[in-house]
Amino acid sequence: MDEVQTIFEPQRVVLIGSSMLTEKVGMTSPQLFKSIVYNMKKFFRGKTYVLDVEGKVGYNNLSKIPETCELAAIMLPPRESIVQAEKCGKAGVKALIIITGGYDDRQRRQLLKLKEEYGIRILGPNTIMGIVNTANGLNTTFEKGLMPGQGKIAVISQSGGVGASLLDWACFYNVGISKFAFMGDKIDVDDVDLLRYFEKDKQTKVICLYMEGIKDGRDFIESAKKIVKKKPILALKGGVAQESAHRAKSHTASMAGSNEIFDAAFRKAGIVRVADIEELMNAAIALSKQPLMHGDNVAIVSNVGGPAILAADAVVKNSLKLAILSGETKAEIESLYPGVDATNPIDIIADARAERYQKVLELILKDKNVDGILVINMLKSCFFEPKDAKVIPKMAAKYPSKPVVDVPGGGEDFALVYKALGNTNIPLYNLPEKAAKALRILRTRYKIVEKH
Amino acid sequence: MDEVQTIFEPQRVVLIGSSMLTEKVGMTSPQLFKSIVYNMKKFFRGKTYVLDVEGKVGYNNLSKIPETCELAAIMLPPRESIVQAEKCGKAGVKALIIITGGYDDRQRRQLLKLKEEYGIRILGPNTIMGIVNTANGLNTTFEKGLMPGQGKIAVISQSGGVGASLLDWACFYNVGISKFAFMGDKIDVDDVDLLRYFEKDKQTKVICLYMEGIKDGRDFIESAKKIVKKKPILALKGGVAQESAHRAKSHTASMAGSNEIFDAAFRKAGIVRVADIEELMNAAIALSKQPLMHGDNVAIVSNVGGPAILAADAVVKNSLKLAILSGETKAEIESLYPGVDATNPIDIIADARAERYQKVLELILKDKNVDGILVINMLKSCFFEPKDAKVIPKMAAKYPSKPVVDVPGGGEDFALVYKALGNTNIPLYNLPEKAAKALRILRTRYKIVEKH
Repeated sequence: MDEVQTIFEPQRVVLIGSSMLTEKVGMTSPQLFKSIVYNMKKFFRGKTYVLDVEGKVGYNNLSKIPETCELAAIMLPPRESIVQAEKCGKAGVKALIIITGGYDDRQRRQLLKLKEEYGIRILGPNTIMGIVNTANGLNTTFEKGLMPGQGKIAVISQSGGVGASLLDWACFYNVGISKFAFMGDKIDVDDVDLLRYFEKDKQTKVICLYMEGIKDGRDFIESAKKIVKKKPILALKGGVAQESAHRAKSHTASMAGSNEIFDAAFRKAGIVRVADIEELMNAAIALSKQPLMHGDNVAIVSNVGGPAILAADAVVKNSLKLAILSGETKAEIESLYPGVDATNPIDIIADARAERYQKVLELILKDKNVDGILVINMLKSCFFEPKDAKVIPKMAAKYPSKPVVDVPGGGEDFALVYKALGNTNIPLYNLPEKAAKALRILRTRYKIVEKH
Repeated sequence: MDEVQTIFEPQRVVLIGSSMLTEKVGMTSPQLFKSIVYNMKKFFRGKTYVLDVEGKVGYNNLSKIPETCELAAIMLPPRESIVQAEKCGKAGVKALIIITGGYDDRQRRQLLKLKEEYGIRILGPNTIMGIVNTANGLNTTFEKGLMPGQGKIAVISQSGGVGASLLDWACFYNVGISKFAFMGDKIDVDDVDLLRYFEKDKQTKVICLYMEGIKDGRDFIESAKKIVKKKPILALKGGVAQESAHRAKSHTASMAGSNEIFDAAFRKAGIVRVADIEELMNAAIALSKQPLMHGDNVAIVSNVGGPAILAADAVVKNSLKLAILSGETKAEIESLYPGVDATNPIDIIADARAERYQKVLELILKDKNVDGILVINMLKSCFFEPKDAKVIPKMAAKYPSKPVVDVPGGGEDFALVYKALGNTNIPLYNLPEKAAKALRILRTRYKIVEKH
């Protein structure tokens, strides 16, 4: 097991902090340290040790770092943190997660010297939340009790805030997660190390990356190029505008680089760029749940007319095409359901229930002119009920080479269908435009894989 | 009171349908008719009569249309509907809402003939949901028990499905609504009639329009031009792509027209165009709750770094500027909070609570270099608590000439702060990008008003 793997898959972890020490500004606090201890004890299926450096209460204190620990998570101000990091190196700990920020250049060099001296690898400093691994329960975040559900999406965030926002999003909407990694200032372990780890990680199918800057652009692109052959990488880039680029530099101490340079680099590497946190999650969900799209042709099946028209607009806007159904498919649908005009987008009318959806979906999935399907099934103004939605994953599973995404409407309709389908392989979106974007991602990814 | 006003503000309404009749495909059904009756009896503060044309059960049946009724809502198949419409005309009813669709050209002409003969005005056919007026409780929708909260946003939808989706959205997210009008095929009462009504309607501050096509473009533009001087009009246009334009034509029987023509027309009229249902609601919320933005300069105040950078990117992307704070403001913030670098976007650090937000917001709101404020207050990875958010509307109210929008994060964070602030005048968005768009809308609207 290499050291980066140790960060995610240790057997024994020591948490080093203080239940007494406090700072006026920043993230070191006895309360937060207690929350990390709580999370590790609650979720981690390995062994957790706690070293409370100034603690007089609370923990069964260790006098020194246990030599069997492979990983240490440190939540102390820079000076104290470096002292403990050195002790970890001496004790043979293989990797460190440094939660706290505020390290100056000299202190960073001190940390890197420990890496040289002891071979210890360092995630951070300024990771804020460290690591979450849903497979073994490792959770060094200080959000008490917060743990995403198991899934296939890995998230790498340079920013604690953006990472925390993604974590909040994943937990709230029950997005399946394999791992979360908060990079922080990445003085040692960086994007490339983490991407390489996720390339091999069996739980991870899709990699999400929030980055503000990069140190070695060439290395990043070359590594990403190889990794995207196996797994998709989605990237959200912060610090795009000149003014915010300047801020990104002071935020996570990295060069931001111009928007155009990153755009070209991402394209060259086969990384799919997204515009915001929601797009990142929506795209990752599509890639983790559905097959890639082999052609441009999208069929839309809907129980409402207007939203189907908006979906058709969105399909075209996303550089996809409205599938022209074969004459056979069209005739069959129209003979089954008089009153339905089976011209794509297909309005199967407001009284459509499970049976009509099932039959129409099957006919369309079989049609060789169709490469992907966007389903709309609103409840409001329609006869459709949440349980009817279950035919959608059923039909999609029967034709596993074509992606299917679903839009149950925007408000309560979405929430109700989400209860019925949230745990299935059907990605759900609250707007036709988001579903069309998800299909575009599945098409883009197909082209990337094909090219490589 | 003119006839269009009667559609929204009648004293006495007769509902005409059937508790027996049913159709194989379409929206006429005894069940739905019963739901309309239920909604009117539950919500409408005027008098509701029910004429059950074939009913043997259920309603205390009328033998004829009561002559005191000013408005009739008809939910019957075309042939029966026209028979009843004529009876309404003879009885002196001033306006009709025709819920059902499926009328052919001959039947439409028959309806229009009634208008000529009796002066009766017709909304629809194919309105699907008819009218909602939160001021008097008029609710001819068949979504049993669904009623949005009172507010300042009026919605006009050509499509039943898009309208229902907007209604679902408004109810679920508790968006304050003045009126909902579902136009359907608009053989008589059209966009212009409704816009003119909303121009004068005291409850309405913002007008949202979903349209697929328009009959008299010149009349529409000229009318809109006058109305936007008083109230903002936001428009979502369906049938933008050539393929979906074709579908829109068959959907609501109107010419779609090219995307570019509509774009130019909207711009000429001073109508603000939006891209989807969510943008429409988000923009309307901003306009209904916040003042317009007098300049381009946005200050960002955040307790997290990464999301503040994404917000800065979004501000610039939306053709706004990152405000350069006055030296005085910057110095004051930095002297109050050592460790805070008060360069915009301002990261007031993860331990910021109500007091720090209040002080920094006040200093920024006072700064003449700032025209609008985007606040970020995440809970995850931070010390902020939902109740702390209450200082935001407090400070915004103290400086009522500058818009303030808020981003509490994306998942549970958003839901928790929404509970604390949802009923205040602060628009809440789950992404910095959506908040920046809202500020752009407030800026765009300012320019439109200034130009006129």
